[in-house]
Amino acid sequence: MLTLIEEHACYDGVQRIYKHDSATIGLPMRFSVFLPPQAHARKVPGLFYLAGLTCTEETFPIKAGAQRFAAQHGIALISPDTSPRGANVPGEADAWDFGVGAGFYVDATREPWATHWRMYSYVRDELREAVTSNLSVDGERLGIFGHSMGGHGALMLALRNPEIYRSVSAFAPIAAPSRCPWGEKAFSGYLGDDREAWKQYDASELVARATRKFDEGILVDQGMADQFLANQLNPDVFEAACRAAGQPLTLRRHEGYDHGYFFIQTFVEDHIAHHARVLLK
Amino acid sequence: MLTLIEEHACYDGVQRIYKHDSATIGLPMRFSVFLPPQAHARKVPGLFYLAGLTCTEETFPIKAGAQRFAAQHGIALISPDTSPRGANVPGEADAWDFGVGAGFYVDATREPWATHWRMYSYVRDELREAVTSNLSVDGERLGIFGHSMGGHGALMLALRNPEIYRSVSAFAPIAAPSRCPWGEKAFSGYLGDDREAWKQYDASELVARATRKFDEGILVDQGMADQFLANQLNPDVFEAACRAAGQPLTLRRHEGYDHGYFFIQTFVEDHIAHHARVLLK
Repeated sequence: MLTLIEEHACYDGVQRIYKHDSATIGLPMRFSVFLPPQAHARKVPGLFYLAGLTCTEETFPIKAGAQRFAAQHGIALISPDTSPRGANVPGEADAWDFGVGAGFYVDATREPWATHWRMYSYVRDELREAVTSNLSVDGERLGIFGHSMGGHGALMLALRNPEIYRSVSAFAPIAAPSRCPWGEKAFSGYLGDDREAWKQYDASELVARATRKFDEGILVDQGMADQFLANQLNPDVFEAACRAAGQPLTLRRHEGYDHGYFFIQTFVEDHIAHHARVLLK
Repeated sequence: MLTLIEEHACYDGVQRIYKHDSATIGLPMRFSVFLPPQAHARKVPGLFYLAGLTCTEETFPIKAGAQRFAAQHGIALISPDTSPRGANVPGEADAWDFGVGAGFYVDATREPWATHWRMYSYVRDELREAVTSNLSVDGERLGIFGHSMGGHGALMLALRNPEIYRSVSAFAPIAAPSRCPWGEKAFSGYLGDDREAWKQYDASELVARATRKFDEGILVDQGMADQFLANQLNPDVFEAACRAAGQPLTLRRHEGYDHGYFFIQTFVEDHIAHHARVLLK
C-alpha cells in the first residue's frame, strides 16, 4: 500500500512523494513520482532515475528540472531513495559514501548489511511493481537513468535486465566500480572480498555478457571539469567495454561542466528525449 | 570587492555565488548570479530575483529552472540572500517569518533592526552597483521579479524605482503586506506602529502613487491551491489597486497550484519571456 506524503501540481501533472512498507528492504521506503498530464487519460511510459551518494528521493525532482520534458513527452519519472534508512546498523551513517545514502543499488550479501541493503531487488522488482500496479505507469514501457552512483546503477540494472528496461542513460556514472575507491569500498563492504562476485554489479563487466543489446544506444554525459572524473568515474573503461561488445554508446564529454545538478539540468532534456525515442515509438 | 565562492557551468553560461562586504548591511552578504553565454561577448540585461521567507541566494538557482530560459534570451539572473546573517541581534532567528531569512526588502527604522536590516537599499543600490560594475550586466536594462515575500519586494522596488527597473513580475506575492499577518508582523517590527510609514513599502499602496506606469504590464502568477492565499497574499487587493491606477496587470490564477517551487518552475519560462520582451527590445 502506498501512502501519499506530498503532492504538488507541476506542468499540469503532479509531483508526488509516496511512502510504503518495503518487504524487500524490511523498512519503510520513500520514492518520488512525477506523473505528466497524459497520465490522466492512459498509462504512460515510466522512467526511473537513480540518484547519487547522499541524495534522497527528493533530489532529482527538486534540482534536475526534468518535469518540463517529461510533461512534453508524456513520460512518468520515478526516483527512489538511495538506501534504507532507520535500520540502525552500527556505523551506518559514519561515512557519506557507504551505508545510509549509499546503497549502490546492489543486494548486499555481507552482514550486517544483507538484511536491509537490498536496493537492487527493491528497485528492479518491488518499486517497479508498486508503481506499475498502483499508478498510471505502463510496465511494458520502462527506461532507467541516473547520476554518479545512480548513473552506474542505471547502467548495471539495464544491462542485467534488458527485458525490463528498454532504454538507458547516465550522467557521470561511476562506470567501472570495481576499479575505483568508491566502488571498492562499497563492493567489499556489501559483497565481501571475492572480486568475482563484484562483476555481476559492474557495468563495465556486464556489457560483455549482456544477452541483448540496446540497439538505440546508451547515452552517457560526462563533464570534463568533474572533480571525480580522474579518480572515480572511468568512462573510458566503459567506453572500451561497449566498443569491444558492439554495444552502441554515445558518450558526450562536455568541457567545463562539473559533477553537480547544474550540469544535469543543462543536459536532462536530451536524456528525456533519448528515452522518449525508445519508449514512445 | 566580490569574492567568488562557487562556480558551475550551466547551459554554456556560469552559475556563480559571490560574497562581498556590504557597507549598507554592515556584514558580509552573498548573492548568486547566472551569466548566460551571451555575457562573454557583451553586457547583457540583468534580472533580479528576490526569494521568499526562509530562503537564501541558492534557492532560486537550485529550484526554479530559470537558467535555461535566461540562456536562450541572453539575460543574467541575480538573486540576493533574504536578510542579513550573523548580526547576532537577540531573537533574530526565533521566528521563520521575521529576522533572519525574512528581511522583507525594507530599510528597518526600528532598533535593534535598523543597523543591519537594510535590504531595500542593499538590493536597489549596493547589489545593483556591485553587479553592473563588476560583471557583464548592463545597468540600463534591469528587471526584477520574485516569490512570496520577494514577489512583493519586486513589485514594491519596481513601483518606487521605475527608472531603475524597466520590467517587473511576481509569483504569489504578499501583495498587500499592510493587511496580512506576515506583513503586519514584519512592518511593525522593522518600521514601528505608524501605519503611514508602512505605505512606502506596500505595493498595493504604491501603485496609486507611482510616477511612471509599466506600460508592458506587470505579470503576476498565483496558484489557487496556495496554502497562504486566503490569509496572506491578497492578490485581489493589488489587482483592484492596479485597475484604479490604470496600471496594466496580467494576474493569472492557476487552478491546483500551490506556493512552492514546482509552481514556479512550471511558469518561470513565461516570466523570463515577459522580461525579455521589455529588456531586449
